[in-house]
Amino acid sequence: MRLQNKFSFNFFEGVTFARMQILDGKKTAQAIKEELKLNVAQRSVEGKKVPHLAAILVGNNGASETYIAAKVKACEESGFRSTLERMDSDTSEAKLIDVIQQLNTDPDIDGILVQLPLPSQINEENIINAIDPDKDVDGFHPVNVGRMVLGQPAFIPATPYGIMLLLKHYKIETAGKHAVVIGRSNIVGRPMSILLSDNKNPGNCTVTLCHSKTTNLKELCLQADIIVAALGKPEFLKADMVKEGAIVVDVGITRVKDDTKKSGFKLKGDVAFDEVAPKCNFITPVPGGVGPMTIAALLKNTFNSCIQKN
Amino acid sequence: MRLQNKFSFNFFEGVTFARMQILDGKKTAQAIKEELKLNVAQRSVEGKKVPHLAAILVGNNGASETYIAAKVKACEESGFRSTLERMDSDTSEAKLIDVIQQLNTDPDIDGILVQLPLPSQINEENIINAIDPDKDVDGFHPVNVGRMVLGQPAFIPATPYGIMLLLKHYKIETAGKHAVVIGRSNIVGRPMSILLSDNKNPGNCTVTLCHSKTTNLKELCLQADIIVAALGKPEFLKADMVKEGAIVVDVGITRVKDDTKKSGFKLKGDVAFDEVAPKCNFITPVPGGVGPMTIAALLKNTFNSCIQKN
Repeated sequence: MRLQNKFSFNFFEGVTFARMQILDGKKTAQAIKEELKLNVAQRSVEGKKVPHLAAILVGNNGASETYIAAKVKACEESGFRSTLERMDSDTSEAKLIDVIQQLNTDPDIDGILVQLPLPSQINEENIINAIDPDKDVDGFHPVNVGRMVLGQPAFIPATPYGIMLLLKHYKIETAGKHAVVIGRSNIVGRPMSILLSDNKNPGNCTVTLCHSKTTNLKELCLQADIIVAALGKPEFLKADMVKEGAIVVDVGITRVKDDTKKSGFKLKGDVAFDEVAPKCNFITPVPGGVGPMTIAALLKNTFNSCIQKN
Repeated sequence: MRLQNKFSFNFFEGVTFARMQILDGKKTAQAIKEELKLNVAQRSVEGKKVPHLAAILVGNNGASETYIAAKVKACEESGFRSTLERMDSDTSEAKLIDVIQQLNTDPDIDGILVQLPLPSQINEENIINAIDPDKDVDGFHPVNVGRMVLGQPAFIPATPYGIMLLLKHYKIETAGKHAVVIGRSNIVGRPMSILLSDNKNPGNCTVTLCHSKTTNLKELCLQADIIVAALGKPEFLKADMVKEGAIVVDVGITRVKDDTKKSGFKLKGDVAFDEVAPKCNFITPVPGGVGPMTIAALLKNTFNSCIQKN
């Protein structure tokens, strides 16, 4: 008995038991989609317009096909209308802009998204700038980026918006926390750093934006209460870079070869989940974390666009 | 002799002699204005249009009068044309927007600035949004903010732009450095944090954006290679918050009562200069640091606007 007691004592000594909880993006997205579905059904009953998303897919990149299919399916689930415009991989920039302009002026269309990446003959910036900012539900147009930075009503890019919705859903207290964002892309890292530091809730974090030129990433991550990993390197964030009780959001989604899978690949996040999760208070899994929230955020943007115009 | 030697030894022991250098905004701004003057004279000789800035002053706030006068004077020094529109303090928002729209469509006007703050009956956001983004030389319009964030050609807000010009003028190596920006205003702190973290030179800093909700400001400042103080609290940044060899940029400019001055006030920065300067490699003074650079940056924006259109 004595030995057993001693063993138990030693076992607990020095070990902090973080109350680790999964930030379940799949369930949260489902709840958001169901709420939207109810709102859309209500609008239908009242004879009001239902949201209509137009998606454009140029060429037939495998990952893009998967993403577009998921977005179209999500529209159906929430009772939105959706239109998928497929264009050949050799489509000219002018032809694509033509299609966008038709959608811009079509009063039935509330949101327009062009699935990226685009073939090399098309300049992505020109395409994004051609979308009416008031239908730019991806939030990539400079007008929306500017409005977001200035705290004005804007379409927020779907991935950062989805993460903010997830933090909100789990009522995570962010004010005064130190957030480290890894990656400065225009569609994730940069807007994430802006939203987290805004005077809002969630928000009010002290935010450090890290990137490829950062020299002391591990040291900074070890200070972080919240880490958003958005650099696109599978299992980059290891346990020795994370402090006990941290909140970790994994934006990475890389296809890694796996012959045991029917598809030939599996999805890996930027976080070494198995070793990092035990140290965390909250962590998003991959898949089932940020991915589904991105789609839910896109639907929310499209819904908001619809109710603002109708 | 022996004692003297010993004394000398002790005197140097433990003291780090930072090669402190003043980042002289006044001189640097002067150099920029002279370069612009040469370019404008050259354009004149070639029969090309010279830059023309329109400034609008509503009411007669003392500080605003001073700033506007400095801007008009700087235009003269560089051979720019300038127009100052004075409007009564009880001017309506609609009337002000009317004036802006006339300037928007006047092909002779390259840049429009509305001196802030505005009287309470006028919504600043509506006014900024009324300015043609291609004449918005203050860089406050959402379109310019968005373009800046996305790394597209944009008018950068004059204060952060002026600071970047100052860092560039002194060839300060910023890549990989840790910059702490104190203050998240739309016109200084926020854009500063974005520019410093951009993949450009100067830029490529790891940037931590701090604000009123930050809980460990001193600890963060002590890690910083570069500190930008933009919170508007006189002499806030003390020596014990700054590490040896830091680069300190003081954006603060507060009028503090001083009966020994003819004006009745003196200007104080956000940095306790006398105690902080000895620890720094580089530091901006107040006055003569960021202030003159802000005006030089405004002239550069106006010049660039002119040559893009003519």
